[in-house]
Amino acid sequence: MKPIITLSFLGALSLAAHSQTAEEAMFIKGLYQQALGEQQGYHWLANLCEEAGPRLAGSEGDAKGVRWAVETLDTLGFTRVFTQPVEVRHWARGTERGECVQGKQERTLRITALGGSVGTPGGDKGAGVTAKVIEIVGREDLAAKGHLLAGNIAFFNEPMDPWLINTGSAYGKAGWQRWGGASEAAKYGAVGVLVRSLTHRQDDFPHTGAMAYEEEVTKIPAAGISTNDANWLSGELKKNPSLQVHYVLGCHEVGRAASANVIAEWKGSEFPDEVMVVGGHLDSWDLGTGAQDDGTGVVHSMQALWLLKQAGYQPRHTLRIVLFANEEFGLEGARDYATSGLEAGRHHIAGVESDGGSGAPRGFSLPGFFHEEHPEIIEALNTLMSPYGCREWTQGGSGADVGQITDEGAILMGYRGDSQRYFDYHHTAQDNIASVHPRELELGSASIAALIYYLDKTL
Amino acid sequence: MKPIITLSFLGALSLAAHSQTAEEAMFIKGLYQQALGEQQGYHWLANLCEEAGPRLAGSEGDAKGVRWAVETLDTLGFTRVFTQPVEVRHWARGTERGECVQGKQERTLRITALGGSVGTPGGDKGAGVTAKVIEIVGREDLAAKGHLLAGNIAFFNEPMDPWLINTGSAYGKAGWQRWGGASEAAKYGAVGVLVRSLTHRQDDFPHTGAMAYEEEVTKIPAAGISTNDANWLSGELKKNPSLQVHYVLGCHEVGRAASANVIAEWKGSEFPDEVMVVGGHLDSWDLGTGAQDDGTGVVHSMQALWLLKQAGYQPRHTLRIVLFANEEFGLEGARDYATSGLEAGRHHIAGVESDGGSGAPRGFSLPGFFHEEHPEIIEALNTLMSPYGCREWTQGGSGADVGQITDEGAILMGYRGDSQRYFDYHHTAQDNIASVHPRELELGSASIAALIYYLDKTL
Repeated sequence: MKPIITLSFLGALSLAAHSQTAEEAMFIKGLYQQALGEQQGYHWLANLCEEAGPRLAGSEGDAKGVRWAVETLDTLGFTRVFTQPVEVRHWARGTERGECVQGKQERTLRITALGGSVGTPGGDKGAGVTAKVIEIVGREDLAAKGHLLAGNIAFFNEPMDPWLINTGSAYGKAGWQRWGGASEAAKYGAVGVLVRSLTHRQDDFPHTGAMAYEEEVTKIPAAGISTNDANWLSGELKKNPSLQVHYVLGCHEVGRAASANVIAEWKGSEFPDEVMVVGGHLDSWDLGTGAQDDGTGVVHSMQALWLLKQAGYQPRHTLRIVLFANEEFGLEGARDYATSGLEAGRHHIAGVESDGGSGAPRGFSLPGFFHEEHPEIIEALNTLMSPYGCREWTQGGSGADVGQITDEGAILMGYRGDSQRYFDYHHTAQDNIASVHPRELELGSASIAALIYYLDKTL
Repeated sequence: MKPIITLSFLGALSLAAHSQTAEEAMFIKGLYQQALGEQQGYHWLANLCEEAGPRLAGSEGDAKGVRWAVETLDTLGFTRVFTQPVEVRHWARGTERGECVQGKQERTLRITALGGSVGTPGGDKGAGVTAKVIEIVGREDLAAKGHLLAGNIAFFNEPMDPWLINTGSAYGKAGWQRWGGASEAAKYGAVGVLVRSLTHRQDDFPHTGAMAYEEEVTKIPAAGISTNDANWLSGELKKNPSLQVHYVLGCHEVGRAASANVIAEWKGSEFPDEVMVVGGHLDSWDLGTGAQDDGTGVVHSMQALWLLKQAGYQPRHTLRIVLFANEEFGLEGARDYATSGLEAGRHHIAGVESDGGSGAPRGFSLPGFFHEEHPEIIEALNTLMSPYGCREWTQGGSGADVGQITDEGAILMGYRGDSQRYFDYHHTAQDNIASVHPRELELGSASIAALIYYLDKTL
């Protein structure tokens, strides 16, 4: 956490600076009023979710998302709108079902394939995996019980830490199970993996999300299981350690597919070759319609510059909206953008990402060097934006996409909305427009607009 | 808004004070961990909503709420639990329905009687009110169109200001229509009043809430109408200014009834006659189960002291949980408590109220004199509680209930959770447990516990 801001700097400001600050404050107030009154971002998001639907990289929905973004941005009068073709990994889900088998009785388990998993043997039409289940709660437990896994299903059941205030931190802490659990278990001879869904909620919605296999380790099929079913299964295993689970996953690789980054550019009047980017990712998981992850980032980015445009602002630096391809499945869009998204002679001076959902504003994450070199800018931002809930100016990164940019000195920042609800919906069938609060979303758009405005004026 | 906190004070702290702060920070961290891990407040709230249900003052549900509170508090081991009998106004809703009549066609209007309204003539079994509708948008519009109201229904349709960040401020600004619109319209000869629901949401849920009649003005029946139907009706009136609305309200006064404040006391070790109160109100509106308004305040208050008790804390001052009777219908519980809730020789030194719903913590409202006299305490609170989202230490009041306390020098404070969602549910059928986010609720309880802890140690 950033140290608390001092008043002393404000006391040292010249009167001219004070006068400027009053204008800036009024301009920023206008951005928030426009966002809250018009709710354009919310309308865009509802439209994206309805028109394109789920946008798994390489899928038809992904292509629809790209078309939607180009068509919508084309109406806004920026300098140019274009796409950067990106070749992406395309994986598809197929059938999925699970049951717990106790004698002759079966109980459905709500599961969903983790992204990138192989299917069970025979895929959609095969017999699936049937085996005993070994519950693993944490890394130490894996080391202790690994020898029991041969021929069995590893059931990774470490809950997200309830004690952490920022749910993203709790997600990060428990995330190893989903990301790497399959290969960890396969090293011990496990034949399948069930992973407790990464959420603090107790509910019936299994969470998907990317996983990866280590090279030269047997690839075993991996599924997320809802927290309610994880709790139930854990309880049953205590009563009957020999019970069996059967599950079928039809998921499979489709191959490489065409997608694109969508870019809208607004040319700067003074420093056209210095580029400030605001971005989110267009792809989503396939269970919901990606309203939170990351439709929110898409419309935050679009609306931030649209608010400035409507307000009659003329940027000094070139401002860009970048809607990245395939964040969920390998960051291919962000990597391609970072290496070849800008013409020779141009460079990025700043980037801000929104990929943490539509919670009401708490603040921004900014790089440590910027805190050290420009405490006065952070102080001014805090003064200007604290009336709107932006009071947390932490030291940290931007996000997975914008974080790929390596231009020297670029200030890479992340929008931080309130995190409590994000993982209720994240990577589930519930990630849809109903999960988004219109005013909270709009406050985010205006906050990002205000940040870009002040930095464009100041840098 | 409070000015931003300086670092300079911290720099001036002695080493001893620093050491104390580290202990305090650790203790407060433990309060949050206990709350988030155990979620006792959420379990209590779900239980209150299920066991007692809606708790309109004087109703059977209200009595159930009192019993639930006494029984639950009795299990917690405080020094004593007792009730203070309060006589309350008892009003009941009865039948309610509305239609817009266009020629031979009718369209249902989603309406609900405002609390305290008279019924339409004949009540449940009468013919109701049928009349033309005059739309009034704002006070100036009332002055301009008042002469059109004779014999007609006044339709107060000023929306909540979307531009205000704190939704409570927008509620306050538009609230005159609900509170006083009936008498304002009756002065011009109106025969009925429809009031746009006080929410930023566009939905189908009419909002109730207290209204009052001026003396010597004809009492006309008043109903809230959902925002969707208000928008629809406004559109129809533009096309057909002579259309009629028909509505029936069976609401009526029942008379005086018995209720009670429920009080749990935890005797202080050093200053037993100096009392710090934490409170919310037990009564609710009858459409939902009052999870937000104010079941949240009830369990915030209970859990705040319960967290301290579980942590082994021994208060220096006497701490009290006060669950007030009948906030919604006249503050009778709070008034009785303020005048005779304490034994002779004792007085209140502080009170904190939670009556703004279960949003994630933003901070607290504290009286202006306390900001002026004790900036170092506010500074310390900010330092201790900003990791948990409490960064707003505004100058202002506590709330309607605790605000009745007039003991000299008492510090009356209000918990401030994020306000964006509160009026989505407030006074509607949607004010139920599903509207409450467990972690956001728990963060509120821990924040109030932390505030009380620090003030008890410091004052």
